[in-house]
Amino acid sequence: MSEHLAVKAALKAQRIETPSWAYGNSGTRFKTFAQDGVPRNPFEKVDDAAQVHAFTGVAPSLALHIPWDQVDDYAALADHAAQQGLRIGAINPNVFQDDDFRLGSVCHPDPVVRKKATAHLLECVDIMDETGSDVLSLWFADGLNYPGQDSLAARQERLSEGLRTAYDRLGGRQRMLLEYKLFEPAFYATDVPDWGTSFAHCVDLGERARVLVDTGHHAPGTNIEFIVAFLLGRGRLGGFHFNSRFYADDDLMAGAADPFQLFRIMHEVVRAGGLDASADVAFMLDQCHNIEPKIPALIRSVLNVQEATAKALLVDADALAQAQRDGDVLAANAVLMDAYNTDVRPLLAELREEAGLDPDPIGAYRRSGHAEKIAAARRGGRPAGWDS
Amino acid sequence: MSEHLAVKAALKAQRIETPSWAYGNSGTRFKTFAQDGVPRNPFEKVDDAAQVHAFTGVAPSLALHIPWDQVDDYAALADHAAQQGLRIGAINPNVFQDDDFRLGSVCHPDPVVRKKATAHLLECVDIMDETGSDVLSLWFADGLNYPGQDSLAARQERLSEGLRTAYDRLGGRQRMLLEYKLFEPAFYATDVPDWGTSFAHCVDLGERARVLVDTGHHAPGTNIEFIVAFLLGRGRLGGFHFNSRFYADDDLMAGAADPFQLFRIMHEVVRAGGLDASADVAFMLDQCHNIEPKIPALIRSVLNVQEATAKALLVDADALAQAQRDGDVLAANAVLMDAYNTDVRPLLAELREEAGLDPDPIGAYRRSGHAEKIAAARRGGRPAGWDS
Amino acid sequence: MSEHLAVKAALKAQRIETPSWAYGNSGTRFKTFAQDGVPRNPFEKVDDAAQVHAFTGVAPSLALHIPWDQVDDYAALADHAAQQGLRIGAINPNVFQDDDFRLGSVCHPDPVVRKKATAHLLECVDIMDETGSDVLSLWFADGLNYPGQDSLAARQERLSEGLRTAYDRLGGRQRMLLEYKLFEPAFYATDVPDWGTSFAHCVDLGERARVLVDTGHHAPGTNIEFIVAFLLGRGRLGGFHFNSRFYADDDLMAGAADPFQLFRIMHEVVRAGGLDASADVAFMLDQCHNIEPKIPALIRSVLNVQEATAKALLVDADALAQAQRDGDVLAANAVLMDAYNTDVRPLLAELREEAGLDPDPIGAYRRSGHAEKIAAARRGGRPAGWDS
Amino acid sequence: MSEHLAVKAALKAQRIETPSWAYGNSGTRFKTFAQDGVPRNPFEKVDDAAQVHAFTGVAPSLALHIPWDQVDDYAALADHAAQQGLRIGAINPNVFQDDDFRLGSVCHPDPVVRKKATAHLLECVDIMDETGSDVLSLWFADGLNYPGQDSLAARQERLSEGLRTAYDRLGGRQRMLLEYKLFEPAFYATDVPDWGTSFAHCVDLGERARVLVDTGHHAPGTNIEFIVAFLLGRGRLGGFHFNSRFYADDDLMAGAADPFQLFRIMHEVVRAGGLDASADVAFMLDQCHNIEPKIPALIRSVLNVQEATAKALLVDADALAQAQRDGDVLAANAVLMDAYNTDVRPLLAELREEAGLDPDPIGAYRRSGHAEKIAAARRGGRPAGWDS
Repeated sequence: MSEHLAVKAALKAQRIETPSWAYGNSGTRFKTFAQDGVPRNPFEKVDDAAQVHAFTGVAPSLALHIPWDQVDDYAALADHAAQQGLRIGAINPNVFQDDDFRLGSVCHPDPVVRKKATAHLLECVDIMDETGSDVLSLWFADGLNYPGQDSLAARQERLSEGLRTAYDRLGGRQRMLLEYKLFEPAFYATDVPDWGTSFAHCVDLGERARVLVDTGHHAPGTNIEFIVAFLLGRGRLGGFHFNSRFYADDDLMAGAADPFQLFRIMHEVVRAGGLDASADVAFMLDQCHNIEPKIPALIRSVLNVQEATAKALLVDADALAQAQRDGDVLAANAVLMDAYNTDVRPLLAELREEAGLDPDPIGAYRRSGHAEKIAAARRGGRPAGWDS
Repeated sequence: MSEHLAVKAALKAQRIETPSWAYGNSGTRFKTFAQDGVPRNPFEKVDDAAQVHAFTGVAPSLALHIPWDQVDDYAALADHAAQQGLRIGAINPNVFQDDDFRLGSVCHPDPVVRKKATAHLLECVDIMDETGSDVLSLWFADGLNYPGQDSLAARQERLSEGLRTAYDRLGGRQRMLLEYKLFEPAFYATDVPDWGTSFAHCVDLGERARVLVDTGHHAPGTNIEFIVAFLLGRGRLGGFHFNSRFYADDDLMAGAADPFQLFRIMHEVVRAGGLDASADVAFMLDQCHNIEPKIPALIRSVLNVQEATAKALLVDADALAQAQRDGDVLAANAVLMDAYNTDVRPLLAELREEAGLDPDPIGAYRRSGHAEKIAAARRGGRPAGWDS
Repeated sequence: MSEHLAVKAALKAQRIETPSWAYGNSGTRFKTFAQDGVPRNPFEKVDDAAQVHAFTGVAPSLALHIPWDQVDDYAALADHAAQQGLRIGAINPNVFQDDDFRLGSVCHPDPVVRKKATAHLLECVDIMDETGSDVLSLWFADGLNYPGQDSLAARQERLSEGLRTAYDRLGGRQRMLLEYKLFEPAFYATDVPDWGTSFAHCVDLGERARVLVDTGHHAPGTNIEFIVAFLLGRGRLGGFHFNSRFYADDDLMAGAADPFQLFRIMHEVVRAGGLDASADVAFMLDQCHNIEPKIPALIRSVLNVQEATAKALLVDADALAQAQRDGDVLAANAVLMDAYNTDVRPLLAELREEAGLDPDPIGAYRRSGHAEKIAAARRGGRPAGWDS
Repeated sequence: MSEHLAVKAALKAQRIETPSWAYGNSGTRFKTFAQDGVPRNPFEKVDDAAQVHAFTGVAPSLALHIPWDQVDDYAALADHAAQQGLRIGAINPNVFQDDDFRLGSVCHPDPVVRKKATAHLLECVDIMDETGSDVLSLWFADGLNYPGQDSLAARQERLSEGLRTAYDRLGGRQRMLLEYKLFEPAFYATDVPDWGTSFAHCVDLGERARVLVDTGHHAPGTNIEFIVAFLLGRGRLGGFHFNSRFYADDDLMAGAADPFQLFRIMHEVVRAGGLDASADVAFMLDQCHNIEPKIPALIRSVLNVQEATAKALLVDADALAQAQRDGDVLAANAVLMDAYNTDVRPLLAELREEAGLDPDPIGAYRRSGHAEKIAAARRGGRPAGWDS
């Protein structure tokens, strides 16, 4: 297979998951600006996710957030997805919006609250069973606002216990991804603040536990691709939550803030074979669209990840390795930059046409009239949002 | 007057303003945890502010946020305050929670929206007239989430226009404070991101316009006391929004994250005569209490500012100047640290007793039963919050 | 003139200045790794700068650093440059490497030291006269390592005085650029830490004083293009020191760390007419090459600035303005990204060929044998470096 | 034993190690300002360290840096120390100042260079044997300046190999501490950037390997006490390099930048029993004094660590635990702050007097005339510095 064909094959095999919550209303602590045509239930979110997949061809799964996506019949939801060529992706438990969780969930000082939190994790594994999901994606809002508020050390022990209970419930191909986040909503300390914390817990738990890298959750100056390379080297990269960050967890469209960083991350993924299905790395978006229309913003994000991947696939690995061996700093950097500076949009347009898709997904979506259709159809009822 | 007496006199004259919104419910974008006994209207907020003043003796004014504190009769609200020994402090227009303000207010690309925003600023000056407030405190959520979203340059021109309109409406002792903020809710660019931008606009406007320094609104590594010293040197420090920041605009109790920084800031204030009433520097809190009870958290914040001030007043100015002149790095630093390392709580307890107050304001508040009283009394109705 | 031709014309007219110190040895505080063929005097630095210009066609001037580039006969140095098609660019006084400057230069507590520093500034204006330079480029290492070490306020006044003395000495087309820097070598506070400080002093001084933006001198999260747009809007952007920064003042090749940021900066420049000669904006590199060969690293940097400029020139200004007016967030962002995602290397190769240059400057330099020639010729003598 | 006595006993048992390099000249990349009386060899460094110990009573060991502290007879150096009541502390290999190490040491692409680096590590274990040191303190300057420069993943494997070789050579009570650092001197990526990387390697190696926390080596916003608590919880905290950081690895006197942070760190240490000799946690300073006199700056640093420790010992652990269990955010924070706000200088003065020391170590040192003595005696010869 020629190199060109290999690049295309890899791009065709890529899968990028969209999150159900990105289709609903979201905002900052200051204001949620409502949009027209927002889904009113998980079934309508599936419908919107199907649009993203229809126009990009590489987004065939949808992550759920429980209880935001609570339904009576999860099998029916999975069926609804399947009928549109989608499957249910990661299940994301929410243990931060109940009044009991004011001071934490699995790390809470009160064992009653911890038990409630853990029960919700187990409920989410049940939902995995019912929907066919094989990823339990854990993020905890647990943390402290003030020094002394609680014992940092005791909270780690409680965290270990909660994770263990959920982990032991997993079966078959199911795995657990543990996300870390530097700050927010806790401001002084978060209980899983960095990849090291997540990594240590995953190693404790076993082979099914892996680190989830959210590209918006790091301190300034952090080299994310280093983390990615390190985790891939030890078989502990569970997946990504792609989004963009200028300052904090800005949750903007993936690739919008620093496309070069996204390329460098994908370069490490490609180099280590992380695109192969056997690597079990989940490529997921996690972002919200507060001021821009949601479906085209998700399409744009998928395209941005795809373009970064294409550029990473174009890196001349042999030339790079040679320059690195030679200690030729400028040549090695130039090999990488040559790939980055390439305009891959024609290649991706070609790829889409071969797959029977419109070469311009954003334009095609706009022309499809879907936005107008849902704006008209989805009147009445309560729009989905972060709080519902 | 002995030095000890002078320190006490300065501390007795200090005034720290609390914000009406800190008495209502608040939260992060993830969740607002409701508390018991939260005020249901601006009059009840005044009642709570009166508690903070009653126990500290140095918090005799309350900042309002419009429309959160909209009432039919502002004179009645001011009267209600006066009856409890309070006055209405800064008026804070809110031009970020109306759907029209999704893409900005005074910087919005659409002149119709800009006009609406400016009209609200003028309405707030009317409220100043009605309440006797002499500070118009401006913070704009205006900004961009994405590169290219709007013209950074054009937005500055629109900002100038909006500010001019409001400025020209001020009279008497009224003045305008212009706050800056690095990020949030806009993530890519904010229209007044730093003190330089605020300063330049204030100089354009005239003598009544000054920079408002919110201690939580800076990039990591920013030396805030430098800014304070610089602005005081040019007569352009309008005041403070005190709060605490570990990572971002965390809005925690003042002095909770970095008490040494708060001391350094107050040292610059003291050194430059910024405590004098003639300096017209407004010392205001701006924070929210998401997980802790609100009134005692405000009392604690007032005490923290007061303690930092006391330490700053204890700096041996002559010894410091001498060591600085000598280029004696260690001695100069030691003079400052001596003051900082002093435990000023006994001095402040003495001060309170002299003023007929309980030496332990937090304990006294707890013992007063106010918390239980409002929790019982304020049932029914809609608790105040950031969204009301 | 077609748009394509206009873009080419703008690119042909662009001028990027290289700094003499980038040709000498440099390092971190841990180690300076010496390289072969490094110039041993300012004349040899001119020779190397001529190479960068010869292969790029857009780098016809060289900035000097005094006393690193002290010579007996500055006119002779300027002549030597002119013979190779170069001119002397900005003069950079060094007031940080004399033992007297341990605690500062123009801000030093001791008036004797301040006078010495100011005298050096004046000497540098003399050198401007002798070399035909029209830019005095000021950066001060002044600052404090410890709180209390000196008076922040008094240092501002001393700074004002020192700047005034130098400013008043300028004549003809000469102008003063005042650089700011968040930190290093001072760690607690620097005396010109941010653009606001530089701007305020420039406004004090007069029309010939302008802010110099070094792209590596900001706090994390700072939006540099906002600053650029703001200063251009007020006629106070004096120029750039381009380099790259991952964490601090890393001084890497321009465009190496965040090419998208460089593009956004150049977009603001292009939009505001900053490329026009009449705008008097100086485009200068300021970086050091600690581990990579210096001349090709400078060529690469020039190319990176040129590529960012080309992309900025390709932005469809009308489409952008329309989308911005419409408040169409996604469309506006897409217009910008379309330009950024374009591969401009073919256009620049074409441009070079039209100018009689090799389309591949890095390859051409490598093939020229210059590196080997200077490595052989420049044996013996003391290689130039930051300390000489 | 009363609580007061227990606090005193803990403080008397505390040991803080000073680093040999802090006694020599140091600087930034811009300039090293020479000082009078600087030691000219390791024996004179020992003499200065003895002064710090003589006046503080808690600094009985000295860390060495090889080859900066290379001597012909290490046993003689240890004897010289012992005669003054000191012992040799950690041995710090230097694998960053040889020209061969331009692109790294144990991570270098060339196996010949890696072998040279590893040989130096082994040589340092020999020196541990000869001096009685039981700590091999490893920091690597290895890293990359540019994306693509070398393989991040391959470098991790080389690092593992190098560490393993050194680790396997340790015997008796000897242990290995692995330091991490976010950036500098490498700017794009460092090979041990964070505690997670160090932790993972230590776990690989075995029980004798532990993480070294340098308080100046983190990204902005990092909660260092969380890391300390986490590592203590897993028996992997090897020790500290105390210094202060405003922005980067500023290497200022410990406690100078954020005394509250130092207190919070010591609180975690105290809470977890990390002060006990059995915990094998090394409390070491690692800083340089570029503009201030070195011996008193080290004394001040020792005092600052001691004061933070005293405050941490004063935390009312029972009251704290109770408030934490109750979820009483304000009370728990107040318990911590009560201890922090206490002025512990009288307690420490008392402690010193009981030990026969001057209660004011800085004043006593100044009055001792040692500074003048060494300034007079140490003329001629080459002052020690980072480069010798």
